[in-house]
Amino acid sequence: MPQYQAPLADFQFLMKDWLSMDEHYQHLGIGEFDMELASEVLAQGAKFATDVVAPLNREGDEQGCRLENGEVTTPDGFAKAYQEYVENGWNAMLGTAEYEGQDLPYTMAVPVHEMLNSANLSWRLTTMLTESAVLAVTKHATDELKQTYLAKLISGEWTGTMNLTEPHAGTDLSLLNTKAEPQGDGSYKITGNKIFITGGDQDWSSNVIHMVLARLPDAPKGVKGISLFLVPKFLPDANGDAGERNAVSVGSIEHKMGIKASPTCVMNYDGATGYLVGGEHQGLACMFTMMNDARFQVGLQGLGASEASYQGALEYARERLQSRAPQGVQQPDEKADAIVFQPDVARMLLIQKSLTEGCRALSLVYAKYMDIEKLGSDDEKVHADKVLQFLTPVCKAFMTDMALETTSLGIQIYGGHGYIREWGMEQLMRDTRIAQLYEGTNGIQALDLIGRKLTRDGGKMLDATYEAFAALIDTMTDEALTDKARILLDDWHQSSKDCLSMDAADAAAAACDYLAYCAYSLIGVMWYSMADAASRGDNATIASSKMKTCQFYESRVLPRRDAHKAAFQAGCEDVLAIAGSEFDYL
Amino acid sequence: MPQYQAPLADFQFLMKDWLSMDEHYQHLGIGEFDMELASEVLAQGAKFATDVVAPLNREGDEQGCRLENGEVTTPDGFAKAYQEYVENGWNAMLGTAEYEGQDLPYTMAVPVHEMLNSANLSWRLTTMLTESAVLAVTKHATDELKQTYLAKLISGEWTGTMNLTEPHAGTDLSLLNTKAEPQGDGSYKITGNKIFITGGDQDWSSNVIHMVLARLPDAPKGVKGISLFLVPKFLPDANGDAGERNAVSVGSIEHKMGIKASPTCVMNYDGATGYLVGGEHQGLACMFTMMNDARFQVGLQGLGASEASYQGALEYARERLQSRAPQGVQQPDEKADAIVFQPDVARMLLIQKSLTEGCRALSLVYAKYMDIEKLGSDDEKVHADKVLQFLTPVCKAFMTDMALETTSLGIQIYGGHGYIREWGMEQLMRDTRIAQLYEGTNGIQALDLIGRKLTRDGGKMLDATYEAFAALIDTMTDEALTDKARILLDDWHQSSKDCLSMDAADAAAAACDYLAYCAYSLIGVMWYSMADAASRGDNATIASSKMKTCQFYESRVLPRRDAHKAAFQAGCEDVLAIAGSEFDYL
Repeated sequence: MPQYQAPLADFQFLMKDWLSMDEHYQHLGIGEFDMELASEVLAQGAKFATDVVAPLNREGDEQGCRLENGEVTTPDGFAKAYQEYVENGWNAMLGTAEYEGQDLPYTMAVPVHEMLNSANLSWRLTTMLTESAVLAVTKHATDELKQTYLAKLISGEWTGTMNLTEPHAGTDLSLLNTKAEPQGDGSYKITGNKIFITGGDQDWSSNVIHMVLARLPDAPKGVKGISLFLVPKFLPDANGDAGERNAVSVGSIEHKMGIKASPTCVMNYDGATGYLVGGEHQGLACMFTMMNDARFQVGLQGLGASEASYQGALEYARERLQSRAPQGVQQPDEKADAIVFQPDVARMLLIQKSLTEGCRALSLVYAKYMDIEKLGSDDEKVHADKVLQFLTPVCKAFMTDMALETTSLGIQIYGGHGYIREWGMEQLMRDTRIAQLYEGTNGIQALDLIGRKLTRDGGKMLDATYEAFAALIDTMTDEALTDKARILLDDWHQSSKDCLSMDAADAAAAACDYLAYCAYSLIGVMWYSMADAASRGDNATIASSKMKTCQFYESRVLPRRDAHKAAFQAGCEDVLAIAGSEFDYL
Repeated sequence: MPQYQAPLADFQFLMKDWLSMDEHYQHLGIGEFDMELASEVLAQGAKFATDVVAPLNREGDEQGCRLENGEVTTPDGFAKAYQEYVENGWNAMLGTAEYEGQDLPYTMAVPVHEMLNSANLSWRLTTMLTESAVLAVTKHATDELKQTYLAKLISGEWTGTMNLTEPHAGTDLSLLNTKAEPQGDGSYKITGNKIFITGGDQDWSSNVIHMVLARLPDAPKGVKGISLFLVPKFLPDANGDAGERNAVSVGSIEHKMGIKASPTCVMNYDGATGYLVGGEHQGLACMFTMMNDARFQVGLQGLGASEASYQGALEYARERLQSRAPQGVQQPDEKADAIVFQPDVARMLLIQKSLTEGCRALSLVYAKYMDIEKLGSDDEKVHADKVLQFLTPVCKAFMTDMALETTSLGIQIYGGHGYIREWGMEQLMRDTRIAQLYEGTNGIQALDLIGRKLTRDGGKMLDATYEAFAALIDTMTDEALTDKARILLDDWHQSSKDCLSMDAADAAAAACDYLAYCAYSLIGVMWYSMADAASRGDNATIASSKMKTCQFYESRVLPRRDAHKAAFQAGCEDVLAIAGSEFDYL
């Protein structure tokens, strides 16, 4: 596979020409941030991703992680790359300035995250989980806990983890068994087993801070009896440094399909000392405040894998000479034409391109609303929160489903070579497959979208999202493109409103198809909008590329929307009719 | 993952109630074969697949194959299972009775092949390649070569391989470089390198017979200058046993995404002794006589993986308790309901089921026409050949594309556990991914369908296929189902005829979507037909299951057909418009 190259030109187009980031920062009162600074941040992020992290990716997959004598070892070079990441301040991008963070706009950090995901997903994961822990502590911990932990988590001196899942409790957290017993001194003893803990331990940092869901004694049953605890691997000493070892250990590491260089740990808590974060029995609510961010970040993982696969496939398609193109000889001096000239290969590349760039556009719209939610006026914050609530499951599920398709196409373009590990294309597919599962399976995302986000407030999140995309259309100038975008958006809005009256079972049966329908529709709107903006920009290549990719998306990808619409409007009877031995005749 | 169970009840339904195999065998004059014998063959095949081969699958993936001192070692137990397979006569199922084969109808062998694929794809591959070598020798070799090699290949004492691909020549065999120099004694010296050779060597058999494409001196350029040679690993001695070592060796074995227990070899021919099979420069034609069979067999691999994944997912969905079903509490005595009651999980299971059983139906229709092509009247043979020519790329590509979707859904139903190797669900997806690539990528299948099969004879293969499926409809009795089937089939027929006038570039751009459109349409016709036949059968469970699955397929899967139709009717402009730096802006 070729060396990953950061898609800086596309970021530049999207941020400057399409979303007018300079105005956006001015409007939010953070004029010290502008496209000049953004370009510099992205260029430096690209350099780190391509020069430091990407070269470790292939070998990391082969080496995997090891657990020996209770200690986790990650692949060669991973710890050193992390030191450089921390030293250069990347870990602190989004941390609050109060605790030595950089308070960077999301619209600048998100492209850096995408690039890290493209370069080396396994490596990126531990830092992503730290960011989630930072959010949890920032939003819900006491000042005392913040003083002890936050600056070190933001800098990356210490890393963080999220501990939710237990063997019998994945989707259904009401079944959690892990216990927390108050010790009378403000601390608790945590006892239980957690599984699937990303970065549960590693050889990168001097301490690991676990955010753990557990039940207090006599807690209410179900999800209303869950509390959140901070449990450090080493208890801080009087100087605030990592001191005495806490009673938490790695029981084993999982053997997985992919992200083999990321240690996925079984964690054993044997009366480990922990501290309450947020109120008693408020654990799930505390977790949910991080959900938008973490789920969006998983969507970005799909985007990163998709971009890397597209780049690999494109380079191979340009170099691999096989047969002649049916539209006529393209390289008469060669024995055959490059396969990029084969219509079917171009078709696959354009599916990759139109979905990848469409999802990148979605990610930046999302990041823009994260900026607004943080810094906008009160009204803007309320509106932005609604948009984010609605788009979060769409981003998480669609961008990861999309990545499975695009990384598989990347393999397909390589032919048999795509199946050979050395080329790296199959690793992208294996690595990205996890993203459809964790942080809530994509089925759970879809239920969240149709069962909560769409319906719970009578469609207000839907309307806010409609307004957000209508605002994109309002800036368009080409009449034909504008009409198409408006018809598509209105049709989506109306079809969505038609779902408001669905009962719970119909909605559950419709969920995944409805989510896909939303994504194809909204990405379609963005393609019209991007083609329009590009035609007014100063880069002729991007202008013609965006217009042609938009046309491809319209003719070849957007029709899938109708298939999903037919499916989600089918009701639940066809899925609930079959039962028992009708499944297998045994 | 649960132990694989052979879907004998479905085979029974399809063969007896749906396709009336007893009549079929009588009609072909092989009344010694009947459903009673078929049931016995399938039951024994099921026993071998489940008891002997399936238990080796998971560990085989972990162990993989090794090359040490030029010798290939396969995982523990693989060689022993092969001995049992050979001893019990399974390898000889399809071989000609003239050389001690069993001349079994394809309709009996194909279900056994499906079961072997479900049980352990890596293990199955070497025997499948031997069957291809048997076909090549049977159809094209001299009597002298047949006397020496055929009985041993049919019994399985020796195994066979197919050697086509070279590093620079995959899809485009015109670029082949391997040379064959005549030695004046009827033999040739073969020199060159071949890659991706399945079962290139192993520790199972006393000899390996390679079928190798190479060029004679002064051969015409391109595919018209390729000849086929038989190159044994050991040259037979005077007694016909494996004697002197030939100058062919394994250069390396590939490290792959899946089918890790199948040795995929780089083969080096260093002046190895070989023998011409078929005429000079007729190598490609000789290969093509095996293509139908080999490509169909790869389709069956997809079917096998899909069935195994469905079974695994179904059992897990019935056991895994998480949350309550939205349509109401299902298991009040448990802490939660099994996820099989979740509409979204049932939806995923039904996609698996409707596609798997639909493809199984297709595989048996295909096998039926293979029987007819072998044993029918002259007119029937001509008709059957047309049907098989048309359906071959559909089976190969759709059944393997389908398998990627279904095995991925199998993972999804397991949630995070699906990503853990121990459970076996992710292995199915990794293993089946190769099937979209080898024996001609699925893109090549689609070009074969639209560029050759559909158009080359002005639509005669299309019409023959239309007649084959119309004959299924003719036996239906339910008026509503019959009408739906006929409308679907006629619409497909007409849309296909509309493609006859496409130029080469439009057809190439349309190919993959046209193939998917064909498959969804024809499987839809079969679903109506199966639901109809089941309603007249004596198994009430199968009757209601087939009807409900038919309804699901109609409402949730068949609408994809329209998306593919829109795409393949879009012409090639949208895929050929973009070029050069418009792909990546770099």
